Amino acid sequence: MAVPVLNPLLVQDAVRRALDEDLGRAGDITSLATIPPGRTAKAVIAAREAGVVAGLPLSREAFRQIDPAIAFETLVEDGTRIEPGAVVARIAGEARGVLSAERVALNYLGRLSGIATLTAAFVAEVAHTGAAIVDTRKTTPTLRAFEKYAVRCGGGMNHRFGLDDAILIKDNHIAVAGGIAPALQAAKRAAGHMVKIEIEVDTLDQLSEVLAEGADVVLLDNMDPATLAEAVAMVGGRMRTEASGGINLKTARAVAESGVDMLSVGALTHSARVFDFGLDIAIG
Amino acid sequence: MAVPVLNPLLVQDAVRRALDEDLGRAGDITSLATIPPGRTAKAVIAAREAGVVAGLPLSREAFRQIDPAIAFETLVEDGTRIEPGAVVARIAGEARGVLSAERVALNYLGRLSGIATLTAAFVAEVAHTGAAIVDTRKTTPTLRAFEKYAVRCGGGMNHRFGLDDAILIKDNHIAVAGGIAPALQAAKRAAGHMVKIEIEVDTLDQLSEVLAEGADVVLLDNMDPATLAEAVAMVGGRMRTEASGGINLKTARAVAESGVDMLSVGALTHSARVFDFGLDIAIG
Amino acid sequence: MAVPVLNPLLVQDAVRRALDEDLGRAGDITSLATIPPGRTAKAVIAAREAGVVAGLPLSREAFRQIDPAIAFETLVEDGTRIEPGAVVARIAGEARGVLSAERVALNYLGRLSGIATLTAAFVAEVAHTGAAIVDTRKTTPTLRAFEKYAVRCGGGMNHRFGLDDAILIKDNHIAVAGGIAPALQAAKRAAGHMVKIEIEVDTLDQLSEVLAEGADVVLLDNMDPATLAEAVAMVGGRMRTEASGGINLKTARAVAESGVDMLSVGALTHSARVFDFGLDIAIG
Amino acid sequence: MAVPVLNPLLVQDAVRRALDEDLGRAGDITSLATIPPGRTAKAVIAAREAGVVAGLPLSREAFRQIDPAIAFETLVEDGTRIEPGAVVARIAGEARGVLSAERVALNYLGRLSGIATLTAAFVAEVAHTGAAIVDTRKTTPTLRAFEKYAVRCGGGMNHRFGLDDAILIKDNHIAVAGGIAPALQAAKRAAGHMVKIEIEVDTLDQLSEVLAEGADVVLLDNMDPATLAEAVAMVGGRMRTEASGGINLKTARAVAESGVDMLSVGALTHSARVFDFGLDIAIG
Amino acid sequence: MAVPVLNPLLVQDAVRRALDEDLGRAGDITSLATIPPGRTAKAVIAAREAGVVAGLPLSREAFRQIDPAIAFETLVEDGTRIEPGAVVARIAGEARGVLSAERVALNYLGRLSGIATLTAAFVAEVAHTGAAIVDTRKTTPTLRAFEKYAVRCGGGMNHRFGLDDAILIKDNHIAVAGGIAPALQAAKRAAGHMVKIEIEVDTLDQLSEVLAEGADVVLLDNMDPATLAEAVAMVGGRMRTEASGGINLKTARAVAESGVDMLSVGALTHSARVFDFGLDIAIG
Amino acid sequence: MAVPVLNPLLVQDAVRRALDEDLGRAGDITSLATIPPGRTAKAVIAAREAGVVAGLPLSREAFRQIDPAIAFETLVEDGTRIEPGAVVARIAGEARGVLSAERVALNYLGRLSGIATLTAAFVAEVAHTGAAIVDTRKTTPTLRAFEKYAVRCGGGMNHRFGLDDAILIKDNHIAVAGGIAPALQAAKRAAGHMVKIEIEVDTLDQLSEVLAEGADVVLLDNMDPATLAEAVAMVGGRMRTEASGGINLKTARAVAESGVDMLSVGALTHSARVFDFGLDIAIG
Repeated sequence: MAVPVLNPLLVQDAVRRALDEDLGRAGDITSLATIPPGRTAKAVIAAREAGVVAGLPLSREAFRQIDPAIAFETLVEDGTRIEPGAVVARIAGEARGVLSAERVALNYLGRLSGIATLTAAFVAEVAHTGAAIVDTRKTTPTLRAFEKYAVRCGGGMNHRFGLDDAILIKDNHIAVAGGIAPALQAAKRAAGHMVKIEIEVDTLDQLSEVLAEGADVVLLDNMDPATLAEAVAMVGGRMRTEASGGINLKTARAVAESGVDMLSVGALTHSARVFDFGLDIAIG
Repeated sequence: MAVPVLNPLLVQDAVRRALDEDLGRAGDITSLATIPPGRTAKAVIAAREAGVVAGLPLSREAFRQIDPAIAFETLVEDGTRIEPGAVVARIAGEARGVLSAERVALNYLGRLSGIATLTAAFVAEVAHTGAAIVDTRKTTPTLRAFEKYAVRCGGGMNHRFGLDDAILIKDNHIAVAGGIAPALQAAKRAAGHMVKIEIEVDTLDQLSEVLAEGADVVLLDNMDPATLAEAVAMVGGRMRTEASGGINLKTARAVAESGVDMLSVGALTHSARVFDFGLDIAIG
Repeated sequence: MAVPVLNPLLVQDAVRRALDEDLGRAGDITSLATIPPGRTAKAVIAAREAGVVAGLPLSREAFRQIDPAIAFETLVEDGTRIEPGAVVARIAGEARGVLSAERVALNYLGRLSGIATLTAAFVAEVAHTGAAIVDTRKTTPTLRAFEKYAVRCGGGMNHRFGLDDAILIKDNHIAVAGGIAPALQAAKRAAGHMVKIEIEVDTLDQLSEVLAEGADVVLLDNMDPATLAEAVAMVGGRMRTEASGGINLKTARAVAESGVDMLSVGALTHSARVFDFGLDIAIG
Repeated sequence: MAVPVLNPLLVQDAVRRALDEDLGRAGDITSLATIPPGRTAKAVIAAREAGVVAGLPLSREAFRQIDPAIAFETLVEDGTRIEPGAVVARIAGEARGVLSAERVALNYLGRLSGIATLTAAFVAEVAHTGAAIVDTRKTTPTLRAFEKYAVRCGGGMNHRFGLDDAILIKDNHIAVAGGIAPALQAAKRAAGHMVKIEIEVDTLDQLSEVLAEGADVVLLDNMDPATLAEAVAMVGGRMRTEASGGINLKTARAVAESGVDMLSVGALTHSARVFDFGLDIAIG
Repeated sequence: MAVPVLNPLLVQDAVRRALDEDLGRAGDITSLATIPPGRTAKAVIAAREAGVVAGLPLSREAFRQIDPAIAFETLVEDGTRIEPGAVVARIAGEARGVLSAERVALNYLGRLSGIATLTAAFVAEVAHTGAAIVDTRKTTPTLRAFEKYAVRCGGGMNHRFGLDDAILIKDNHIAVAGGIAPALQAAKRAAGHMVKIEIEVDTLDQLSEVLAEGADVVLLDNMDPATLAEAVAMVGGRMRTEASGGINLKTARAVAESGVDMLSVGALTHSARVFDFGLDIAIG
Repeated sequence: MAVPVLNPLLVQDAVRRALDEDLGRAGDITSLATIPPGRTAKAVIAAREAGVVAGLPLSREAFRQIDPAIAFETLVEDGTRIEPGAVVARIAGEARGVLSAERVALNYLGRLSGIATLTAAFVAEVAHTGAAIVDTRKTTPTLRAFEKYAVRCGGGMNHRFGLDDAILIKDNHIAVAGGIAPALQAAKRAAGHMVKIEIEVDTLDQLSEVLAEGADVVLLDNMDPATLAEAVAMVGGRMRTEASGGINLKTARAVAESGVDMLSVGALTHSARVFDFGLDIAIG
């Protein structure tokens, strides 16, 4: 599979904002004070644990914006599984710039690699079933495109990118619309031909209503594996099935073995630990 | 202690960007399709676990930007400890707007409350010692002001907000500058009178050099509690002492009991789990 | 059918940019010179031809940003068919502000109403067939959300909003990918479960390949009505069919009568004439 | 005459916004799915009708921003008359980037060339008279600088760029100011020495008042050719004369032959059809 | 004369950027630390010297953005001459907000009032001659609209607002164009009918060339009063005359008495001292 | 001492805004009209008086953004003392671009060099005493980072960059907080360990209170030299001392000889005259 690609225009803007946040008005006053101009350095970014790397284009961009003369050579591509000690990038240039960009570069890399690594752990749990691991909209505000990219790097699949690119009818919509049938009918009237429709159900009775009305995907929320299996049987391939509701690394396997097509996991993006990278410098 | 205050101008901008990210070009096509205009709803935001709340001004702003006519009443203030089931806000207005803003409101609230809750857990571990828990620059890019606010809500104290508001001389700076004494001397020459100077040491020998030269704060990196205690004794109150290096909830107590003034903990902001809030709706 | 709704956050930003463009650095120097402060005026926006109105929220926003004290009362809703002379809005407030906002307000209203009116003409041509009129990405750069809204106001349906919310495999993609089958297979591997896949074909042979491989929608490009009818018969309801290729008001009827589900028409957004509105003022 | 020049800073910003609009959060998912990284392509942009080209710098910028390694060679300059089939640019680079930028590049090029072509048609109608064809402020919001550039490419002349760079006293200003004399006097008091003053009249009586008071330009609104000729005679070269009011390709010649210096034509920018260009690709 | 009006949209943006600059990421940490929430205050902005006030709308906006509940009442209008001790505004609201906005409010007010006051001093020097005092493009980058507004408040007149709204042919343009005649001819060919043309001359010989060719305004650069008088006589009212070149308060009178229509003075905006205002607070 | 360094990201943004302000929508219509494309020019930027240069990176950036092909070679570095006639930069490239960027380049350079020059004059006055000259927050809105950089170029030292990076308790805070002791205690409770605390006093009695409570810096406001000397004696090196209050070039020496550590001077940034640079062009 090809490495997932990140829109470079989004990368430029995001890194710029992050550098503005870190440099403030006065810039990196520590490096300016302690490091003479012209002093060069070489550095590596090395993993301090095992996992899947994601975010190297953002790290590269941080150094590039601070000083276009800094060389940034990646030794692996995003989506690669790495071991502790693995060097993912080599950096060379003016020491001031290298140190000024370090934190922004590592903050992106650690956060996205943490997401990719957690995603890969879920993917591994369910690999024998063919089920896909998908993300949610429970992402860090303004970082969604990057976090969903990290999910792809970890082998996961993306759900909607926003409220605008697909219809997902949830319990609250059903309640306000007056039931599953009117909600689905309204959605079909409104949806363009390029928009998929998914609907959430909590019970098998609701599922029957959905099957009677038709949809592209059904979200089976908070069902135990046995109920999920029953639901999958009821659907019989007529629509795609997605399980959701507090799925974690301990429960994912049983959920997947119910036969659902997908497991959506909010924790991928809302509760991943940072992945530990360090920047080790050598005076050049 | 007064509730920490969040700059409303930063809140406006951040929420706007988050809503743009979620609404995209076509907006909340699900709510527009399934909910008639004019239909109103009441809702509550309720905690699904115990912890410390942070981020209500961001949630409020999400609803306000989507529809200024939506009422958003908070029942607790940020910084309050809450129990599972606690209702933190009541919302009333057009159902379309309430549902369109829900995810952005919860994404901020869950993330920041997660940070406040984790901070409070560290604070509780070390409360008997008088040591402060402080954050780092290992924050989510572009969310630093909010995450540091959440740390304050949890009872923690803030370290630098960026590279520009204080000097922190790290191992790499020392190496490039040619040693502790030249690095500190350069920093003092460059620093304005309103800028504090901190320096990182890994050994007691380095600490001696720092004590000879003078600084405002010394960062004792990756020392075990016994060494920390020895360092604290060497310092003898001449500068403030900060311990760092992979401190977690299991090790924090012993670190604090070494007598250091502060523990800085990257995990507060880089590895907090989301706090689980739900928006429960009732048709109005 | 409910009136289509336009994201107010996008409206605010767009109108602000348009006012900045028109007011420049020195502002409306004519009104400032010739109209004393405090002088009030009443005005109406009246149609000078027949058609379908679209864009009133943008007009309203122009007056609001210039002077929040200006009253703007709409007499019809977007999506309404109007006759020559119809008054669509009444305005009252300081004359300076009314005249300063006039051009931006009319530029949006005329352009979008022109699109809605042209769309409605296409819709009327094919109404007896049940075929839908859909737009394209041939929109004015940066005005896409508004122009697609105008298409909905005119009774049309929206195609993709961008390159990111659905897959549309065109002739160039097929050529590069090495054929219809490999292109479709690659798309299915890459697409998430909430993403629809459409593919363009120029011949019935290509259509056979698509039918063998499967897709959500097939785009029948530049086929005459007889060939389209044959294609529709071949598809037999297994996927949705969309005709495209230089369709105009003279050819639309015959195309629709071929039995296709949709006609996509670039002219809706790239070649609509402005709709003629005037702002008639009376000194208040 | 030199080719009109477009401010490259405005081009950068506008193209960036247009690409953001088209690429959204997930980017060009079709090209990413179906085209392997590294696959190159060559393409040409070719005219499918006759007219005047305008907008090549915007097209070039679209490819450049997507991928700076894409080569974009123009074969003609903006302002050139071209025939059907004419190749205006050659493109070579990674196929993904070429296809991702295509639509934005063509949307600008088609729209601006449409304006240039329509302008040139008006210019040709009146060429024998020496009258100039000028545009209005009835431009697409936020695209004014580009659309006025296209008018220049077509041989037209620009009127005001906004409310701030010249004074144009219209009927509404006259009414509020209490007549032509007080309006002109107020304008002269307020205007700096680098600001021209134009005033609109509907009748020859009004024109007499203007001639008594003096102005730089008089706008003769909605007069028939005979009345225009009379007005031109009355003015006798003391100020410049501009005819306006629904002038179209059928009426322009007669209007120009009245002897006015200029015809201002809103249709140049508010009702031009797109010019049809295609991007024809060959796998590299 | 009516008070000059400042575009409120420009005011909003500028003040927002200024507050962002001053508040940074952590906000006004002094006021947050020392002033309890809810504590109110009353304050006045009082002049500490004599002059002409300009910039009150920017000051008002600073308080409004920080806290819309703060009351800001102006006692004079921009353009008013004030004496030492004069109170120009009364403020009441939460003490935190009042103090947080103070510096931005005073920085704008002091700077613009300084410009207005200096302008008024020049205007007074030349009042007996009827000559106008005009500004230049030697303004603070990004503050031009405000500084030119301050010039109007001081009784001055504005020159061009930018490179785009009028033609001013300077010595360098003449040199590159190959002389005065070709430069003027080129300018006339290129200029639209709403654009004025001014040309700079250093000698009376050059002036003769200009008179032969024609222009709207002639800039007489660095001429002594006697030469200026000769130039004015040569022009004989055929175009407007503007003197420039290091004019200061000591030389302005003699320059004006030469009979020129205008004196342009860079110092108005590039070398005005701040006007001293203070914010005096009383606990509410 | 190393040359102070200016954050290039801030430079890019500021120059971009300044160019947008100057070029407007239509660009440099004079240069476009009078100078043929392709015509090249060489130019120098030369000092017309003596002083200290600051702002060359901003000037360079203005030419670079207008036309990256323009060569800009600096002959001195910011912070250098120069004599009248000194050439600080050589420029070569297309004449249109050179002239279009000229004013923005000179506006930054003149303003910042004016500040550096005035700062250097103050520094020279007090050099024999060891006292430092420091700036204030009385800077031009949105130009603070550049103006504080200019102060460093002139040999001065920076005070706070904003309200967020240090605590400065002024008379108004003391009044609201209920006195010096409660204000200082509140500040110490709230301040993080990397934040310095300064407090303003007007009398020696207040100074005694501050000495009893402790602070990092004391601001001695509006004291005469004798009182300052007494204050310095009272402090006895326990905190740093800063004199403020209308200090000018005539009074600075006596103030500094009182023994204070620093003099803060608002005039450095709020009342510096522009430094006179000219761009002298030679056709290339």
